Amino acid sequence: MKAWEIVSDGGIDALACNERATPEPGPGEVLVRMRANSINYRDLSTVLDPVVRHIPYPRVPNSDGAGEVVATGPGVTRWKSGDRVAGCFFQDWPAGGISAPAMATALGGALDGVLAEEAVLREGGLIAIPDHLSFEEAACLPCAGLTAWNCLIAGGGLKAGDTVLLLGTGGVSILALQFALAAGARVIITSSSDAKLERARAMGAHETINYVATPDWAKRVLELTGGRGADHVLEVGGPGTMEQSIEAVAVGGQIAYIGVLTGGAINPLGLMRKSVRLQGVYVGSRAMFEDMNRALALHDLHPVIDQTFPFAEARDAFHHMKAAKHFGKIVISI
Amino acid sequence: MKAWEIVSDGGIDALACNERATPEPGPGEVLVRMRANSINYRDLSTVLDPVVRHIPYPRVPNSDGAGEVVATGPGVTRWKSGDRVAGCFFQDWPAGGISAPAMATALGGALDGVLAEEAVLREGGLIAIPDHLSFEEAACLPCAGLTAWNCLIAGGGLKAGDTVLLLGTGGVSILALQFALAAGARVIITSSSDAKLERARAMGAHETINYVATPDWAKRVLELTGGRGADHVLEVGGPGTMEQSIEAVAVGGQIAYIGVLTGGAINPLGLMRKSVRLQGVYVGSRAMFEDMNRALALHDLHPVIDQTFPFAEARDAFHHMKAAKHFGKIVISI
Amino acid sequence: MKAWEIVSDGGIDALACNERATPEPGPGEVLVRMRANSINYRDLSTVLDPVVRHIPYPRVPNSDGAGEVVATGPGVTRWKSGDRVAGCFFQDWPAGGISAPAMATALGGALDGVLAEEAVLREGGLIAIPDHLSFEEAACLPCAGLTAWNCLIAGGGLKAGDTVLLLGTGGVSILALQFALAAGARVIITSSSDAKLERARAMGAHETINYVATPDWAKRVLELTGGRGADHVLEVGGPGTMEQSIEAVAVGGQIAYIGVLTGGAINPLGLMRKSVRLQGVYVGSRAMFEDMNRALALHDLHPVIDQTFPFAEARDAFHHMKAAKHFGKIVISI
Amino acid sequence: MKAWEIVSDGGIDALACNERATPEPGPGEVLVRMRANSINYRDLSTVLDPVVRHIPYPRVPNSDGAGEVVATGPGVTRWKSGDRVAGCFFQDWPAGGISAPAMATALGGALDGVLAEEAVLREGGLIAIPDHLSFEEAACLPCAGLTAWNCLIAGGGLKAGDTVLLLGTGGVSILALQFALAAGARVIITSSSDAKLERARAMGAHETINYVATPDWAKRVLELTGGRGADHVLEVGGPGTMEQSIEAVAVGGQIAYIGVLTGGAINPLGLMRKSVRLQGVYVGSRAMFEDMNRALALHDLHPVIDQTFPFAEARDAFHHMKAAKHFGKIVISI
Repeated sequence: MKAWEIVSDGGIDALACNERATPEPGPGEVLVRMRANSINYRDLSTVLDPVVRHIPYPRVPNSDGAGEVVATGPGVTRWKSGDRVAGCFFQDWPAGGISAPAMATALGGALDGVLAEEAVLREGGLIAIPDHLSFEEAACLPCAGLTAWNCLIAGGGLKAGDTVLLLGTGGVSILALQFALAAGARVIITSSSDAKLERARAMGAHETINYVATPDWAKRVLELTGGRGADHVLEVGGPGTMEQSIEAVAVGGQIAYIGVLTGGAINPLGLMRKSVRLQGVYVGSRAMFEDMNRALALHDLHPVIDQTFPFAEARDAFHHMKAAKHFGKIVISI
Repeated sequence: MKAWEIVSDGGIDALACNERATPEPGPGEVLVRMRANSINYRDLSTVLDPVVRHIPYPRVPNSDGAGEVVATGPGVTRWKSGDRVAGCFFQDWPAGGISAPAMATALGGALDGVLAEEAVLREGGLIAIPDHLSFEEAACLPCAGLTAWNCLIAGGGLKAGDTVLLLGTGGVSILALQFALAAGARVIITSSSDAKLERARAMGAHETINYVATPDWAKRVLELTGGRGADHVLEVGGPGTMEQSIEAVAVGGQIAYIGVLTGGAINPLGLMRKSVRLQGVYVGSRAMFEDMNRALALHDLHPVIDQTFPFAEARDAFHHMKAAKHFGKIVISI
Repeated sequence: MKAWEIVSDGGIDALACNERATPEPGPGEVLVRMRANSINYRDLSTVLDPVVRHIPYPRVPNSDGAGEVVATGPGVTRWKSGDRVAGCFFQDWPAGGISAPAMATALGGALDGVLAEEAVLREGGLIAIPDHLSFEEAACLPCAGLTAWNCLIAGGGLKAGDTVLLLGTGGVSILALQFALAAGARVIITSSSDAKLERARAMGAHETINYVATPDWAKRVLELTGGRGADHVLEVGGPGTMEQSIEAVAVGGQIAYIGVLTGGAINPLGLMRKSVRLQGVYVGSRAMFEDMNRALALHDLHPVIDQTFPFAEARDAFHHMKAAKHFGKIVISI
Repeated sequence: MKAWEIVSDGGIDALACNERATPEPGPGEVLVRMRANSINYRDLSTVLDPVVRHIPYPRVPNSDGAGEVVATGPGVTRWKSGDRVAGCFFQDWPAGGISAPAMATALGGALDGVLAEEAVLREGGLIAIPDHLSFEEAACLPCAGLTAWNCLIAGGGLKAGDTVLLLGTGGVSILALQFALAAGARVIITSSSDAKLERARAMGAHETINYVATPDWAKRVLELTGGRGADHVLEVGGPGTMEQSIEAVAVGGQIAYIGVLTGGAINPLGLMRKSVRLQGVYVGSRAMFEDMNRALALHDLHPVIDQTFPFAEARDAFHHMKAAKHFGKIVISI
């Protein structure tokens, strides 16, 4: 079987599509014929900076995949051949709070990822795909979908009537838009592109802000909320956004932080005086995934796919992510 | 000004419509010209059993009213003449958890209620009416609306994709239906009337159960949820429902209990083995009311009014409540 | 190896000590040489009523055991020979909320228990024993200890300064006494025996009530709390206690319900008007167990052992539990 | 009566002790004869930088005072002459989450403070002093005490067995030490002074770190916790501490942020990958204060007073705060 591999720090174009032996599922393991894959910003950054991230070579990139069970190892009882499954970002975070051992089981980082024709995953590191979703759609969920769900719902405790501020129209933000609307929230979303804002509005976003036309977008959020601010901000960490996020959030509100980009100064008075909760969010547990799938099924939600690339052209998918022109998720069909 | 008064334990027909002097708002108080009123089961039961409830005579019944500010007492800064307001069920429960002192400020019980042309309420015991609601609609909220909101949202932590089981089509259940749908939940609702179930379905209920045709309705809930049960049950306390509610709730689920009727045995093994949370709910705080109003406005939700009676015929409204044929709220226009 | 078995509905004296082949640990499984065991009321009731509880014969009773790892099956990475471990009541409840699948993995019920010289348990169904505890002490924790911890700490959210009401001096209550004191709470405890109350007071209980001398013990709790009531009640379900528990609990307080005995009527007005949370608690997760062990180690807490019986006399241990004269835990040394 | 006033941006030495007419309590207000006062870093910074903080002249500084009720205005029912009371930092934050209106009622900032012989406070902005505390001790609580309580207990949800990291030995940290110990936590505390660390250890701190001798104190925290990190960090915002606080906190842990000093870069990867909750904390509500007082009384806790200054020498108290050599609270007796 074929697998894409990071084999050097040469970046996207150095990704190699190599032949590997079909792996054998060991005790508690499951062999999955992968059918689709999606890219996250974190995957791009792993390909670009494997050294910084302590990635050994060769390493299969990408955490998010969906496919069919082909074989099961000794002791496996939950899955059988033919089951449609997605992999969990963390192979061993079944439920509850995150832990260091769970973090050591991230696909496409600590462990080999799933940008391959076949992959062996753990019995507890799989989840059934809702019937209404294709493999391509299901492949959008393990990292981006669950991150959005954790930020707003599982960890965020979003209530109907709350206001959510989303920054940009990448994979996480657009899934967050869908979840926020399903949960009865009011959504304000930003972008540099009026066309993308138009699409977001068509999906149900209540308010849109072009942050190029309105560089003081935090002030606009305050205007749109009668001075109250957004109850939830999903901070994906574009350059220099944190300061405005703190300005735009409501007193007692929360900023879910998933960015891997931004650094920069944080205004401490703002954080304290507004009693802001700045919550780092790193994907989520399998139990959260199950809850998310129930919501996806009930609301017949389909992840928005920006573009689908064939397996052989996976490098183009990474280049497309790097160009940052997408709206929603970038998918690779296998 | 005229006020209806409980003057004896003679029941509905003994309610008296008496002349009272217009009250003077004291420090921190506000005089409200009441424009509409709604009846809750608790109000009916107060009229029927004033002795059991330690109600002194004369006592103005009913907790739920809406109207306009006419005058403000010394020290009042939040309200001015002309403001459209509803009264809070508890005149002094601003936020946080319930407390014994808050409970001693219930309208139409510990304090005079609002079935009167004018009422003096506390500055902190009023809330602004959302623009999209009439006085009649706003009068449906203080007890029934806030109870439903607290059960499911403020206290219940309902998530999108959760399943909610509602028992019957009274005021609380129909408002709960609206909130549950706004919050992205799946709703199963019961009634003895197919016509009412049809109305509930038209409002968005996903599943309906006629509990006369299906006396084992708990089993039906389990079927409808793939054996999992409902995540939230709103137990309004019809006779003998608790046992089935415990059967119908999911493992780890919650039953919000607002009933004033039911007693009866509770199966302790069920409660423990399913780790059920049985949460008594007694209306809610002003802060919850503010959150609820934001959701009502965002979703353009209007309480469902079964029938509106003129002030002079308030007794008929109580008889209508007692007949228990209503769907949604019974309102008195003033 | 020898194992005690339930082989009929003949009760305690029908328990049989039979020879079984040493089990082989399969994939993900661990063979433990059991060194100590403790009995819970639930175990007694399983022995007494195996039919009601759908127990197949032969079945090894008892959920709580501690011992040493002897061998590990394929794929096991967390444990090695010689590790001191206790078994988890639920073999598959790693973290988060309880679930139906977790409930299907209870030792000494759905699965064979640990009243045997050897037992095969799951890799994830074991926990390391804190260094300061003997096997006998560690064997007190899986059911009774974790139940107490979940009621008060993990699920109960006990705060320093809160008042806890404990009913009786059985295993759960005495462990709850230790945890409540460690967490800075004020403890009121009841018993029919002044001698036991004296022991509880020596352990740090702030107030004691002899419920024979003071049958209206709920009133006494209200007196002792200035009318406020207890913030937390741990309701173990003696006959007829629930009504007084509801009377004794504070407005907005919680009653953790672990009883398998009591039924009886619940006053619905009390539950609702006081906004009581009645929370069914069924032991707890492995993650909670880890937290509990940290607290035990920090505070050098040792479970109180009422009496230790040799393995051959396990039947006497059950008779001792049935006599209900114990203070703390009844242990069987293996 | 005499009151200290900020009358210019001249700093500590420009504070003026002026004669003011005894104020008259209006509706809902209470006149308090102040008996003691304490200084917080925030008070010092208000005196030093009144312009930055938009303080109008003249303004009475300091939020924290305790005294006796002398007179009550119209409509006041909760207090009577002679009651021993402390003022609430926020005159109108009764319970629940913080809000912008609550924030507009901060003493010694938005409103006149209490460094005066008499002050008029709101009926709901007072709290009864526990019997076991002197006025001087009670004056330590409204800002520093409640901030520590909110960080760890009310907002922090500290569990017995958790590890708490405290930075420095100022007023908040030493009160946090007392609360953390009462709540059964393990405490690690830092200081530049071995003598202060010795005092902290005598009070019960489990581990101490001299951050001058051990500039990599975060690494030491990790060592002391077996690599796990501290579950709770109370970040008071000394220069450059945040980066190490993020390094020292456990995966999934929380950093309560109360600093008004630190800015500086925050490592975003650390926040996200460790799923840290960085929670801004701005004192707390009256309901939290009541809970805190219950804990203080139960555990007979007394705030540690570094030094007490007479009213006439209030300027010396501010200079002492500025010198930052204190251990615990700086008090002014009136």
